[in-house]
Amino acid sequence: MQDLIGTSIQYQHKSLSVLDQRWLPKKTCWRPCNTIDDMVYMIRTLQIRGAPLIGIGACLILAHLAEQGMPETALYAGTEQLSASRPTAVNLGHCMQQVQAILQYAGPAGVVEYTENLFAEDVRLCKKIAQHGAALIPDKASILTHCNTGSLATAGTGTAMGVIREAKAQGKDVHLWISETRPLLQGARLTAWEAAGAGIPHTLICDSTAAMLMAQGRTDQIWVGCDRVAANGDTANKIGTYALAVSAAYHNVPFYVAIPHTSSDSTCPDGKHIQIEERDAAEVQGVSGHAGTVTWAAPQTPVYNPAFDITPAELITGWVSDSGVYTQQQITEQGGI
Amino acid sequence: MQDLIGTSIQYQHKSLSVLDQRWLPKKTCWRPCNTIDDMVYMIRTLQIRGAPLIGIGACLILAHLAEQGMPETALYAGTEQLSASRPTAVNLGHCMQQVQAILQYAGPAGVVEYTENLFAEDVRLCKKIAQHGAALIPDKASILTHCNTGSLATAGTGTAMGVIREAKAQGKDVHLWISETRPLLQGARLTAWEAAGAGIPHTLICDSTAAMLMAQGRTDQIWVGCDRVAANGDTANKIGTYALAVSAAYHNVPFYVAIPHTSSDSTCPDGKHIQIEERDAAEVQGVSGHAGTVTWAAPQTPVYNPAFDITPAELITGWVSDSGVYTQQQITEQGGI
Repeated sequence: MQDLIGTSIQYQHKSLSVLDQRWLPKKTCWRPCNTIDDMVYMIRTLQIRGAPLIGIGACLILAHLAEQGMPETALYAGTEQLSASRPTAVNLGHCMQQVQAILQYAGPAGVVEYTENLFAEDVRLCKKIAQHGAALIPDKASILTHCNTGSLATAGTGTAMGVIREAKAQGKDVHLWISETRPLLQGARLTAWEAAGAGIPHTLICDSTAAMLMAQGRTDQIWVGCDRVAANGDTANKIGTYALAVSAAYHNVPFYVAIPHTSSDSTCPDGKHIQIEERDAAEVQGVSGHAGTVTWAAPQTPVYNPAFDITPAELITGWVSDSGVYTQQQITEQGGI
Repeated sequence: MQDLIGTSIQYQHKSLSVLDQRWLPKKTCWRPCNTIDDMVYMIRTLQIRGAPLIGIGACLILAHLAEQGMPETALYAGTEQLSASRPTAVNLGHCMQQVQAILQYAGPAGVVEYTENLFAEDVRLCKKIAQHGAALIPDKASILTHCNTGSLATAGTGTAMGVIREAKAQGKDVHLWISETRPLLQGARLTAWEAAGAGIPHTLICDSTAAMLMAQGRTDQIWVGCDRVAANGDTANKIGTYALAVSAAYHNVPFYVAIPHTSSDSTCPDGKHIQIEERDAAEVQGVSGHAGTVTWAAPQTPVYNPAFDITPAELITGWVSDSGVYTQQQITEQGGI
């Protein structure tokens, strides 16, 4: 397989390594990934994350093992194991179905070619989304984003964050409000770090401060990514997205979803059919990361910790995809993106 | 001065001590409070918090020092210092104005009597609010609350939390959703601890999960406290309250504010005139408490950290006070509670 170099995943000199995102921004820690079990563990523990990137990561380990001579049956079993590691984002499941089909008609060699193309395609999709999205951003704009949708979530420049980077690159005067994104703080840890690196003026807020900003008229647009968009436009994304969309509708703030077509799931009729991953209570009882672990809630405090929520299509102003900008009506008519 | 014993503040054997709420629920740490500077520091650092309680705490140290013979001029200077320690909650400023007036017409001895009465009155107001509020809670109810409004925020049983405790005491089947309340996690640390102690079934959530619960129809009512209610009913409360109110309106979930009349400010015409305290960036860049300090954002990440927000009166279903339940129309007509 050819070398494939992303911001947080690299295949080089026939070995695969992953930037452990749990330690960002304090530590840049690359970890080797040699087995399917390694990748499953990395996905489950969010060392690697982002809807597009976990699909690519799963393919990369399979392609690597295919090239090393792993038998077809073991690769096939691997697709099922990887597919089950996180349920909500469609990319992972879709990629694993593709690999299963390829194994049947082209054998292990086909998986390598598929993975190389997938990686290159993701880079290309990010660029296209960024171009379509940046056209929607005015010359002077205060934008709010949630979670992390940048080069740590994709092979390319990112989805929503890619749009914002492109607007900045075009010389637009963009200020970014970053919601911290409890419980795992992808906004505070990752997006703030990426924004600083890209020279984008930014301000970190608690998730629950966003509504107040909108009331103050200090938010011109909201841009988020997505994990799965159903055929009717209902959109699964990081927990907290729905609260932002409700508030955006109340304050008439445009709410955009950046979506590579690979995150569209036309086989899923609506949001009710999207499985929402629930994660450990410990994530809400405290925080855990490079700087240490702090548990602030009393032990055994019961917790409800859905990792995602569903934003109904009617709350979304537009879906910005690699092929253009879509309205709810367009999505409904064509049954997805 | 007579002994005055609350859950988190005690005047006993002529000495004042405060339960340092920063260390809850892990550690029950009582700290002596001997000077005005001590109390200012405790209020600023949130060792003592809650709109009613910081007013009472400020009076307690002044009454104690008055009894110890501190001259009137020093006591007067103390009221100004204490008054400036936190700006948003009305109780503190109001109490300090009262003490200033009392010093003029009754001298230091009057401050002791005023403080004893204030303490007893707060206990009585909490009971009244609890009774009026519990009548609004159905036999089986799932209630969402924000921040901490219990016996750690008042001399008595609490405001919103007092209502929920009373409903439970009346045999109602109440389940409590507790939003963690970033950045200082009063929900996760204090309310979850109080709910467990009171035997109230409860579940902790991230602040941004509340909207999803409402969409799922799993929240029958929202109950919050307040720091200041303007003459038109606009209500200042912990950051995140406004986001909950917007979401409650969208989902038709009743939204109640529990308020001792001491938190009503008829001299303030509306929410625009309420000063919102902004706190340190470090509170959002990480977390600090008994279990340790973790900073997860990159150093120097710019932060906007308002401690409170304003919920406009039209989003509030009812204000439940010691004298009864008020609608927006009633508040507007009488210019406050």
